[in-house]
Amino acid sequence: MSAIIVGAGIAGLKAASFLHENGINDCKIFEARDRIGGRLYTVTGFDGKRKYDLGASWHHDTLINEMFNEECIAEKDKRPFVFDDDFWIFVDGKKGRVDRDPQMRLEIIDNEISKFADLIFHQTLNSLDCSFHELIMKYLFLKRDFLSDDQIRYGSQIPRYLELWHGLDWKELSAKDTYFGHQGRNAMALYFDTIVNKLATTFPEEWLHLNTEIKSITRARDKVVVKTAENEQFSADYCVVTIPQSVLELSIKGDVEDTKGRIDFDPPLNKKIQSGFETVHFGSLGKVIFEFQEVCWSNESSKIMTLAETDELFVQKVRNAKTLPDLLEQLKDAKSDSFGSCWSHPLYFVNMAKVNGIASLMMLMQAPLTNYIESIQDNKKKVYDFFEPVLRTIMKTLNAKPVVEKLNCNDSEIPVTDAPVLRNIITSNWTREPYSRGAYTACEPGDDPIAMILAMSDGQDSRIRFAGEHTIMDGAGCAYGAWESGKREACYILENYKRK
Amino acid sequence: MSAIIVGAGIAGLKAASFLHENGINDCKIFEARDRIGGRLYTVTGFDGKRKYDLGASWHHDTLINEMFNEECIAEKDKRPFVFDDDFWIFVDGKKGRVDRDPQMRLEIIDNEISKFADLIFHQTLNSLDCSFHELIMKYLFLKRDFLSDDQIRYGSQIPRYLELWHGLDWKELSAKDTYFGHQGRNAMALYFDTIVNKLATTFPEEWLHLNTEIKSITRARDKVVVKTAENEQFSADYCVVTIPQSVLELSIKGDVEDTKGRIDFDPPLNKKIQSGFETVHFGSLGKVIFEFQEVCWSNESSKIMTLAETDELFVQKVRNAKTLPDLLEQLKDAKSDSFGSCWSHPLYFVNMAKVNGIASLMMLMQAPLTNYIESIQDNKKKVYDFFEPVLRTIMKTLNAKPVVEKLNCNDSEIPVTDAPVLRNIITSNWTREPYSRGAYTACEPGDDPIAMILAMSDGQDSRIRFAGEHTIMDGAGCAYGAWESGKREACYILENYKRK
Repeated sequence: MSAIIVGAGIAGLKAASFLHENGINDCKIFEARDRIGGRLYTVTGFDGKRKYDLGASWHHDTLINEMFNEECIAEKDKRPFVFDDDFWIFVDGKKGRVDRDPQMRLEIIDNEISKFADLIFHQTLNSLDCSFHELIMKYLFLKRDFLSDDQIRYGSQIPRYLELWHGLDWKELSAKDTYFGHQGRNAMALYFDTIVNKLATTFPEEWLHLNTEIKSITRARDKVVVKTAENEQFSADYCVVTIPQSVLELSIKGDVEDTKGRIDFDPPLNKKIQSGFETVHFGSLGKVIFEFQEVCWSNESSKIMTLAETDELFVQKVRNAKTLPDLLEQLKDAKSDSFGSCWSHPLYFVNMAKVNGIASLMMLMQAPLTNYIESIQDNKKKVYDFFEPVLRTIMKTLNAKPVVEKLNCNDSEIPVTDAPVLRNIITSNWTREPYSRGAYTACEPGDDPIAMILAMSDGQDSRIRFAGEHTIMDGAGCAYGAWESGKREACYILENYKRK
Repeated sequence: MSAIIVGAGIAGLKAASFLHENGINDCKIFEARDRIGGRLYTVTGFDGKRKYDLGASWHHDTLINEMFNEECIAEKDKRPFVFDDDFWIFVDGKKGRVDRDPQMRLEIIDNEISKFADLIFHQTLNSLDCSFHELIMKYLFLKRDFLSDDQIRYGSQIPRYLELWHGLDWKELSAKDTYFGHQGRNAMALYFDTIVNKLATTFPEEWLHLNTEIKSITRARDKVVVKTAENEQFSADYCVVTIPQSVLELSIKGDVEDTKGRIDFDPPLNKKIQSGFETVHFGSLGKVIFEFQEVCWSNESSKIMTLAETDELFVQKVRNAKTLPDLLEQLKDAKSDSFGSCWSHPLYFVNMAKVNGIASLMMLMQAPLTNYIESIQDNKKKVYDFFEPVLRTIMKTLNAKPVVEKLNCNDSEIPVTDAPVLRNIITSNWTREPYSRGAYTACEPGDDPIAMILAMSDGQDSRIRFAGEHTIMDGAGCAYGAWESGKREACYILENYKRK
């Protein structure tokens, strides 16, 4: 029995590993990139030592995460992760810190908003979806008499940390899909390359073919025939396609200019898959790493969010609106939907000093900001100038001196100072890479990811299968979900083969 | 059409109110006590002004609480409640404050334990129940490699604030029933007497008969015949029995010494009800109010919990145990199950200074401690001596000077000082009152409250009905649940009557 795996991300690697473990000897993995790991991508910092995951960073749901459990076999002090589910620091540019304020109690408002969403979407049948923004406005409108001005103004900004889960601005994010259960604490991987590389040693090296883009997948009686961009042809009994949903979507689009990564299916992707694409989208979580010379700031918490700037008039609009549509109409005029400034969005900074002592801040951003920042990433000074105001605020919040910008300088040019000296900026590139075209699955208002998940886990047919973060329910959008889906398809192949 | 309501608690009052509102003119409410309100009970402090609710204090689930919504008709600044769902201060007697500790992060461990319970009991079918204590030990045992010594030692104590919801010590509390969803913030009523008294004005005064204990309820063809302790006899088309579950239970017990409050049903309570009692119990949340001369402490938070004392050896026992039963066995020897000292239990202090400026602390305690403290309540000095160590710790935590005890003193005997001067102690008496016999419904390991709730809401038959906190699913154990159940039975009667 033979198998072909398209894509050497965590799903493809796990599928290959599991097949080999179960006695399969004839398998090929084709990877378009020059590296394995896909959206698990560990890079090195300016000093050649520090490491960062530019893709997934966390083990989520650690009470039920099997991939994480395998990591835990290591000795206690050598484990390649750290629990970092810390207390949030929330900073408003003008008001300063607003977390754990004994009068505003914004965390409690945040918690009530999540309950409000739960009552609307999970305890009521057939509720119409709306944007996350609209949901929060609905809460404010209905509960305004129970909320202080500050709770309306700042409380409405706190839940937006969820934008940094989904990689979408609240106006583009499905309210129904925004909240989800966490099964235990989160642990930050240190780093995912260890897992990726270890997995790659569990099957024969010759299975792996890097720099090999697949152009077509054809079902031919009892075989699957796969053709590369170089027109090489391979056939196997089974094929597992693990390319991102965003790339797979090219297959059903007739008129794409940039066809890099596109695979032509013959016969075309089935109806269920095609309609699955109608109710699911792709988010663009992006990262910017700010690398400093030394840690010279507080390690009170690893989690800091800067709130988007709010308008004083906002509270009056909420208080005076006659209806919810009236309120939404008024807010429409207030702000454009473009990427604005660094204060137009909530931004999440991981204080790596608290996580593992590294003198860096890892910033998470959402679409559409990600698209813009990734487009200017080559100009580090320009990226710095964009974020300089929030960086200044964060350093002040962490009791540090103002940032000294020394991008692209030699060690000898670095002044001796107890201020944070910025040495380098690393920006992710997911939105511009043809083989990712964004970060991971996300839902816009009206979406329902279930259709796609079912279509994907059912496969194109009995021989052309799918794996990846977009193909699974538990762990959807997560590294461990992708890993599980790779295992699932390997199991499927082994069982399906046995039955014949 | 005529109706008799037994009990003038919030359920009985609401039932009467709703019947009157819908045109019923012939109704009697019999109340054994000399007051209305039942387990909503507002008392006055030593100065004749301060007020406290010795029974229920909170409006829970305010996103869905209809009784609360009716309160909100009042003008914004005159509303008789305050949202007080504050941030917890956790204090260990020896270690001091342990809340929001950036290293221990106990709140995050607490949250993970709730997820752990959820995975065991709600996401897995047919899990065997155990005590809340055993559940937490199971978590510690399974996850000990992921927990620091301090997280094991203090993290295991934090979730015990739930004992102060249920009124039961963790060793007597059903793990399956411990966690429940909150539908929105909690608001403290100021005070429930307002609601009770207002409700009593919505039906004719002559309906109400205080000091009238009911001894028997007999079903006679199309009537219900009710006999009082004074042997007066009344009959009506319907009867709604709203006495507490603890009192109702006397009806199925043959050999009770103290029969006060007991009602003999003829025919006896039906089989469903009788078996309902097998899987539900009664908790004993109790309150002690410490009244001070003036506020001279911090109002950082309204919620303070003192943790039960932990043993240094505890961590070693958790780390070294070979199996969970092994661990539980070792812990059995460590501590007796008696009420111990004030450091043997978690205790919840509501800082009334933060809630509404009153110079008092309202302490909540659980069975079996409640039973002991209520039994010594007449000796205020003895109650004070028992709690003096935790009071001292709390005042220190709130940056106040040590307590000056001036119980039973005249105003003229009170020294001028900036230390907190204790003027009075008020203790609840629920466990010793024959018409309550505890606080409210609670579940011991192995219980399932659903059987009783279904039996109660089905009624004894079509004419003998039940209402109260023990008869309803949404709002079980809450004032608003009792209120809803009164309305439900009034509706039932009106509809059942119409159909005939």
